[in-house]
Amino acid sequence: MSLVQRFYAARARAYERSDLARNMKPLKPSFTEEIQGSFARQAIMHLIGAELSLVEPGVVEIKLPYRADLTQQNGYLHAGIVTTIADSACGYAAYSLMPAGSEVLSVEFKVNLLRPARGEMFAARAEVVKSGRTLTVVRADVSSIAGSGDKELVATMLGTMICVRK
Amino acid sequence: MSLVQRFYAARARAYERSDLARNMKPLKPSFTEEIQGSFARQAIMHLIGAELSLVEPGVVEIKLPYRADLTQQNGYLHAGIVTTIADSACGYAAYSLMPAGSEVLSVEFKVNLLRPARGEMFAARAEVVKSGRTLTVVRADVSSIAGSGDKELVATMLGTMICVRK
Amino acid sequence: MSLVQRFYAARARAYERSDLARNMKPLKPSFTEEIQGSFARQAIMHLIGAELSLVEPGVVEIKLPYRADLTQQNGYLHAGIVTTIADSACGYAAYSLMPAGSEVLSVEFKVNLLRPARGEMFAARAEVVKSGRTLTVVRADVSSIAGSGDKELVATMLGTMICVRK
Amino acid sequence: MSLVQRFYAARARAYERSDLARNMKPLKPSFTEEIQGSFARQAIMHLIGAELSLVEPGVVEIKLPYRADLTQQNGYLHAGIVTTIADSACGYAAYSLMPAGSEVLSVEFKVNLLRPARGEMFAARAEVVKSGRTLTVVRADVSSIAGSGDKELVATMLGTMICVRK
Repeated sequence: MSLVQRFYAARARAYERSDLARNMKPLKPSFTEEIQGSFARQAIMHLIGAELSLVEPGVVEIKLPYRADLTQQNGYLHAGIVTTIADSACGYAAYSLMPAGSEVLSVEFKVNLLRPARGEMFAARAEVVKSGRTLTVVRADVSSIAGSGDKELVATMLGTMICVRK
Repeated sequence: MSLVQRFYAARARAYERSDLARNMKPLKPSFTEEIQGSFARQAIMHLIGAELSLVEPGVVEIKLPYRADLTQQNGYLHAGIVTTIADSACGYAAYSLMPAGSEVLSVEFKVNLLRPARGEMFAARAEVVKSGRTLTVVRADVSSIAGSGDKELVATMLGTMICVRK
Repeated sequence: MSLVQRFYAARARAYERSDLARNMKPLKPSFTEEIQGSFARQAIMHLIGAELSLVEPGVVEIKLPYRADLTQQNGYLHAGIVTTIADSACGYAAYSLMPAGSEVLSVEFKVNLLRPARGEMFAARAEVVKSGRTLTVVRADVSSIAGSGDKELVATMLGTMICVRK
Repeated sequence: MSLVQRFYAARARAYERSDLARNMKPLKPSFTEEIQGSFARQAIMHLIGAELSLVEPGVVEIKLPYRADLTQQNGYLHAGIVTTIADSACGYAAYSLMPAGSEVLSVEFKVNLLRPARGEMFAARAEVVKSGRTLTVVRADVSSIAGSGDKELVATMLGTMICVRK
């Protein structure tokens, strides 16, 4: 086996041992519609031009086309905007597994910026790591997609969301 | 002494023992102008309406008036926008102590969201914790200011910035 | 004013504006004894030789003398041991403000390692940033103390603790 | 497809798109021996009874049998000890991809504690997320293994390591 193959085989073994699926809670039947409705009320998503591109149980993706007015001093997407789509993706991924009649709020998150955020399109994909009664831990990867279709990981988030009963 | 007084006395003792000042490096004479120029090139700051309100060695503050188009689904400032002003404040606080001919990039940050971000004005104030040759560790507090003038801490950031020689 | 004086004046202004004291909850009269009792039951503290050196409302300090068997490959205190005393200090600082009949657990923390952890003694001093009904956000600084009495900040933690009702 | 199957299919797609393998650098032929030698010099690993159980390019695992003297007040493994094995695993995973003649130091890490750390054995498995010239971002999962063989994820770390040229 090549080094690359050993790499991927190790990753596959790690995920086979994952306990994520075991811990998935019964779902609200309407979670997709609720997330779409809440996303539509996030005014900031309209301002920056972000779109909800995937909603699955415990997994949410948000896409954002590059725009020059979202950048820092070198023309890269500002780390705060990278965080904006990653945080919303994490919040909704957590919310997708929460019981009916609850709301989600961000407790905290950490973001590692891995490369300058350049490209034509950005995608923040969040996955629940551990879904609890009160707290849910979520991870998100933000990729940039060049015009050629090439993808690069530009940031990764690890955060905590809280379920607030209405 | 009251409990509150003991609280503040303990904080004062902690900061008297701080080694921050000892580690401050010789400064670029022009650091204020350089930060103002770089801030003016951060297109995202124009989009959201943020302003650079304070530049001192190792300390930078950015202010942001509330706007309904910067919010999440409950009408609070989105955590990503809180992060946007905190990250830029941290980056410039670090940059103020970096040698001439260098640039600053965010390596990573963690944000704790302490209260819903509501109010008329928000201020992100960053202070350098440790300034090193390559890496600088910075902390920022984001406060909300109500119409009455009341202030509340809404978030706190702890992050790492890197000095890139041009 | 010198640069150093401006530095400290800026920090003092920041802390005068802090809303920490306003948010302090009524305290368990017995919080000091409860923390001492819980600390005595943390077997790991005996193993590494740590001692509880200060308990005030919202502030706890733990001291740890250097020992060669607590080190990483270069003879510095291992980052995990730095974290061990910082985490316990944060947990007890949070616990000091929690109501009677509750327990504290760590939700998450982030640690920045600022300098190699060398010295004769280490002190982790934690202070509550925001004390809430369920979650408490805490910050800790870990200093090293040389034989000469010189102090250096070697690490800083920002973490979240949860109050669990028994 | 069941919800569980959709879950895993989504994860598989995410990892197929990963750019990890593309970024792997030429390796020191002797990296396994160097990591074993360095681990043997980490005195803290002897004190707590940890063992290096896997070394692959970009992936390192450390195992730790439960011991009552490593616990907090409820008899669970102390979060600082969970962090100790996760941090060393992350450091060595990063180091495995660094050029000859370099050393690794921890810059910072964040740990989410997902469940009480109980069980007969603990395993911290670290994987490189992004390997750079100066900084390497690493993730680690810490699992507990019960006597029955059941595994649970008890903590997850996201951290930054720095390459220091000797």
